[in-house]
Amino acid sequence: MDSIRAEIISIGNEILAGYTINTNASYISQELMRIGLPVGWVTTISDEHDAIMHALDTALKRAKAVLVTGGLGPTPDDITKKTICEFFQTEMVFNAEVFEDVQNFLRTRGVDLNRANRDQALVPAAARIIRNKMGTAPGLLLQKNGVYFFFMPGVPAEMKYITSSFITDFLAKELRLPEVHNRLLRTTGIAEAKLYERLKDILDLYPDCQVAFLPRHIGVDLRFRLISNEQKDIHRLEQFVKAVEERAAKYIFTDRQIELEERLGEILVEKNLTLAVAESFTGGLLSSMLTDVPGSSRYFLGGAVTYSNESKMRLLNVQEKTLASHGAVSEETVLEMVSGVQEHFASDCAIATTGIAGPTGATPGKPVGLCYIAARYKQKTAVRKFHFGTDRIINKKRGAVAGLEMLRRLLLNI
Amino acid sequence: MDSIRAEIISIGNEILAGYTINTNASYISQELMRIGLPVGWVTTISDEHDAIMHALDTALKRAKAVLVTGGLGPTPDDITKKTICEFFQTEMVFNAEVFEDVQNFLRTRGVDLNRANRDQALVPAAARIIRNKMGTAPGLLLQKNGVYFFFMPGVPAEMKYITSSFITDFLAKELRLPEVHNRLLRTTGIAEAKLYERLKDILDLYPDCQVAFLPRHIGVDLRFRLISNEQKDIHRLEQFVKAVEERAAKYIFTDRQIELEERLGEILVEKNLTLAVAESFTGGLLSSMLTDVPGSSRYFLGGAVTYSNESKMRLLNVQEKTLASHGAVSEETVLEMVSGVQEHFASDCAIATTGIAGPTGATPGKPVGLCYIAARYKQKTAVRKFHFGTDRIINKKRGAVAGLEMLRRLLLNI
Repeated sequence: MDSIRAEIISIGNEILAGYTINTNASYISQELMRIGLPVGWVTTISDEHDAIMHALDTALKRAKAVLVTGGLGPTPDDITKKTICEFFQTEMVFNAEVFEDVQNFLRTRGVDLNRANRDQALVPAAARIIRNKMGTAPGLLLQKNGVYFFFMPGVPAEMKYITSSFITDFLAKELRLPEVHNRLLRTTGIAEAKLYERLKDILDLYPDCQVAFLPRHIGVDLRFRLISNEQKDIHRLEQFVKAVEERAAKYIFTDRQIELEERLGEILVEKNLTLAVAESFTGGLLSSMLTDVPGSSRYFLGGAVTYSNESKMRLLNVQEKTLASHGAVSEETVLEMVSGVQEHFASDCAIATTGIAGPTGATPGKPVGLCYIAARYKQKTAVRKFHFGTDRIINKKRGAVAGLEMLRRLLLNI
Repeated sequence: MDSIRAEIISIGNEILAGYTINTNASYISQELMRIGLPVGWVTTISDEHDAIMHALDTALKRAKAVLVTGGLGPTPDDITKKTICEFFQTEMVFNAEVFEDVQNFLRTRGVDLNRANRDQALVPAAARIIRNKMGTAPGLLLQKNGVYFFFMPGVPAEMKYITSSFITDFLAKELRLPEVHNRLLRTTGIAEAKLYERLKDILDLYPDCQVAFLPRHIGVDLRFRLISNEQKDIHRLEQFVKAVEERAAKYIFTDRQIELEERLGEILVEKNLTLAVAESFTGGLLSSMLTDVPGSSRYFLGGAVTYSNESKMRLLNVQEKTLASHGAVSEETVLEMVSGVQEHFASDCAIATTGIAGPTGATPGKPVGLCYIAARYKQKTAVRKFHFGTDRIINKKRGAVAGLEMLRRLLLNI
């Protein structure tokens, strides 16, 4: 443990009780990683004097920066601020500037000031105030034995604002963190082990370059990282990334922190194309993922979720004889679905899915996880058969992503 | 801090780096809460000797039970087991029974045994083995100074299996935990403050009974909790729950740990009814939530996602003049959508949504977050106008839940 590290302390009984998942810690970790300050410890404790004192004291001994979330809300029983004063041997004072911020914040929302809001302006005298445009509790910065302590509210939007508008820049500068160069390549449609095999000889050629394989349900992220400000090192990182990019070109959908549905949306906008989808296996998830993207109404015309044979015939013109002779889960059916939805919506592109999402519904020769997916761009069609697993929710996700990816490749001709 | 508490230690660099969210801790917390053993601390550390030793030592001093996840995988660099041996002053031994379990596990999956798998059978001599049917790494139980330490793999399915098949029962018995009585009422369609107001006089009548208000995006959970084995206390809890249930009947959709879409599915099955949905505002999410439920094909026929005016006309028979005079986001349009989809799918019930999900798309008089939702059961229709917020993803979720709830109330005539 030579390198300097940060510690995150999450204060909150809802997290300890398990009702709230600690996504704040994950956000802060990623932000600090980005500036080259790894997190060594995440500690979750209750809103109690002894627990807070002990956690601050432990962190003081091992971390260089400590980011504390929670316990600063407007509820009267929050004892975090009192404990902060004790730990830093300072006293609570009324801060007029904070009070003005609180008043302004409430005024723009048409909310009346109450006693609890007024108390937000009471802050430890030794603290530097970090303004919080997203709420009424300010961020606080205190120092002890050369360690920086930041206190923030636990509300995600407020924590994110304070972290990204102040803390990361402050720490990068004050701790003179070395330059970090991060690169990202997001892949889909290839398993981690297969991807590793494909890249192995390149990895061997660049033993000095770091890359992490991070599997997600929808694919594998490659995260490259270099700590150096030497021009030749940076150049070598670029070469390494380029070599990986060329070798795995087909599977890489972006080098940015965006999802596949956003990337596909960008391609559709660039090419001025429209899209419609027909879903059985994915049950609406494909549409929902596409419409999660702001502005998707520019290219997404809509979709049909056809969970019954009747609806496949009525909405998508799937032929009764196709269903009778090949079944709803078949290549023949998915091909009629994809043409049918393209025609109905008069769209340039279409995606269709049919299969057995599970956990029940298997028939002889058609196991749970069997899925047919088709993508269509004007008159060109791609169709594939997949064998996913037995988890219904994961199957839907994998099917939706496979459909998006098939259309992406069809549009880019790869 | 009088009561006994548990500590969770999560070992894992992916969690510290922020790429993996610590959902394991949330699962374990809820399971322990259920048996009346609250978690006092969650500590996340890296897979390093010093960090593990320090965390175990700290936990030993304050917790009665310590649940450790991660660091037991088949990768050769895991040093957790070696550190365990040092902390408990024991040695690593080959365990033939574990080896047999590993072999059997791999055989049923058609995987060959490798060196790393064989190493899974090396376990600390002092450990009691907890069998793991979901993977190759067994769970371990060790004791020191009367504190129970459990070690489990970090893979969620394996952690869950070991926790629920062994640890909770073991701890309830060994620690002689008092009887805990948990009750749950899940509400939707009423804000936390409003619900509190509605229930206030009942809460005042039962100051001895504990209830927690837990807001979620889709509603507020009421969690009741009583630690006692006195018959009269249990009776009083039941009375309290019943009083709350009667007062908030309209908003309570279940007293079990299920979601609204599952509850609606049960009602549809009970009444032998079918459902189809027409989605603009919710963009497919409503269908996707409905099809997340296993067996939903029994009642869910399908849906139309109509993101364009053309598709509303073509798929749902919305009249061109309705769109021209009232706009796509209007009560008139949503009423035609809900009838149109009911007719097209020949379903008993239907839900339709239209609105401006945001963050862009507002027009004069029609702000972001404006949404019309209709539910229909045979010839009866309910329609409502909503003003949601500006977050697209949360808007979709709230719209979908509002639609499900409107149909639930229509079907139950409440």
